[in-house]
Amino acid sequence: MSEGKHLGKGSQQPALPDDGKLRLYSMRFCPYAHRAHLVLAAKKVPFHAIYVNLTEKPEWLTNVSPLGKVPALEIVTVAKKPTLIESLVICEYLDEKYPENPLYPKDPLKKALDKILIERFAAVTTAMYKIFIGGPEKNPGALSDVSTGLDIYEKELAERGTPFFNGDKPGMLDYMIWPWCERSDIIPFLVGDRYKLDEKRFAKLINWKKAMLEDEPVQSFLVQTADHLKYLLSRRDGYPDYDMLS
Amino acid sequence: MSEGKHLGKGSQQPALPDDGKLRLYSMRFCPYAHRAHLVLAAKKVPFHAIYVNLTEKPEWLTNVSPLGKVPALEIVTVAKKPTLIESLVICEYLDEKYPENPLYPKDPLKKALDKILIERFAAVTTAMYKIFIGGPEKNPGALSDVSTGLDIYEKELAERGTPFFNGDKPGMLDYMIWPWCERSDIIPFLVGDRYKLDEKRFAKLINWKKAMLEDEPVQSFLVQTADHLKYLLSRRDGYPDYDMLS
Repeated sequence: MSEGKHLGKGSQQPALPDDGKLRLYSMRFCPYAHRAHLVLAAKKVPFHAIYVNLTEKPEWLTNVSPLGKVPALEIVTVAKKPTLIESLVICEYLDEKYPENPLYPKDPLKKALDKILIERFAAVTTAMYKIFIGGPEKNPGALSDVSTGLDIYEKELAERGTPFFNGDKPGMLDYMIWPWCERSDIIPFLVGDRYKLDEKRFAKLINWKKAMLEDEPVQSFLVQTADHLKYLLSRRDGYPDYDMLS
Repeated sequence: MSEGKHLGKGSQQPALPDDGKLRLYSMRFCPYAHRAHLVLAAKKVPFHAIYVNLTEKPEWLTNVSPLGKVPALEIVTVAKKPTLIESLVICEYLDEKYPENPLYPKDPLKKALDKILIERFAAVTTAMYKIFIGGPEKNPGALSDVSTGLDIYEKELAERGTPFFNGDKPGMLDYMIWPWCERSDIIPFLVGDRYKLDEKRFAKLINWKKAMLEDEPVQSFLVQTADHLKYLLSRRDGYPDYDMLS
């Protein structure tokens, strides 16, 4: 077990008990790994989390995740212990393998429409990433790109008329976009008054966010805005402080 | 109906019969649209194909596909006639909506592993695209990137020991990678002797390709290598000859 510490170059591959539990290779501040943590929590599936230093990756990482990627989910109960990568593939696998509390609508069309909204959220994450990493000065259009990207989700919540995209409780779409929404509150700290989520334009999304913050799986992996900011600034400096919470 | 002709700027949105059939907005040489045609054929689902000029898009396209993308699948039997985009989302929707002849393995783990192989094929398509569009001179590493990318699939076929990735007949993974495999024979025409698929290194894939060419859905939308090449060269010249087959 890594006990929350991120294992890096020169580390030993952790010796985990032979208990058949899933093993999630993760990084505490990675929004894609965050998705897998949310779905594992929503499904109440026990697992071991192994945190990995992505700047100086451990040599053993490619044994479990051939491309050296996280999140990676190792399934130890199956011959050859296969590992799944790609956050959405991992989450959809968990949803199918553990059918209790289904996260996608049953209707294939509704499910497909949710998948498209998950895909299209890339417009928001790309714009946010530019603000987070490059800084808004180098990307003057990024702030308005975030808002334009979010308009679709505001409209969708209004049309669905439910607190969550999935209805009365969060589903796949809610969880897949949440990691970036949780991090979005650091934007004002980076750009000052130039960015404020318009309370009228995004009334539904603001309520959705409040409701998401009450959700147990969300709470179980929540990082406070100040900590997200602190991590981001350490990353910008070239020395990501992976272990700042552990 | 567009009767195979690609509708462009200034065209009228085609008046189709009110027969409840799916409507696929497509482009005859688009590999992503190709995926949707293959799955529709494999599922034997009747549909209308409407071909679109992607250089001079018809004004009405955004009425059915808000981002102006193809493939787009319009479902006219449902209120508001929703349209699906993203080739994989469309194909997975069809697989779930029309459960006969399932294209994914039932086992969630096997299904997830197939999805990862669909994702990872992007390494091959990216390298091929560089050869097709930029030309191999500008992308000296692209030829070996294609081969390295294909090694995974050769190994996978060997491990599975079946003619198709899906077993005795093609499934989702087979169909999702096929459009680029069908086009791969134009590479030698573009680069000459520098590229030849090593018959020993890719023995299984070569047999797979032969078997795919016998498959009815593949045949139903097949374009000969000479025509793929002719289209590509017209595209390189800046005037894609969308209607050369119609």
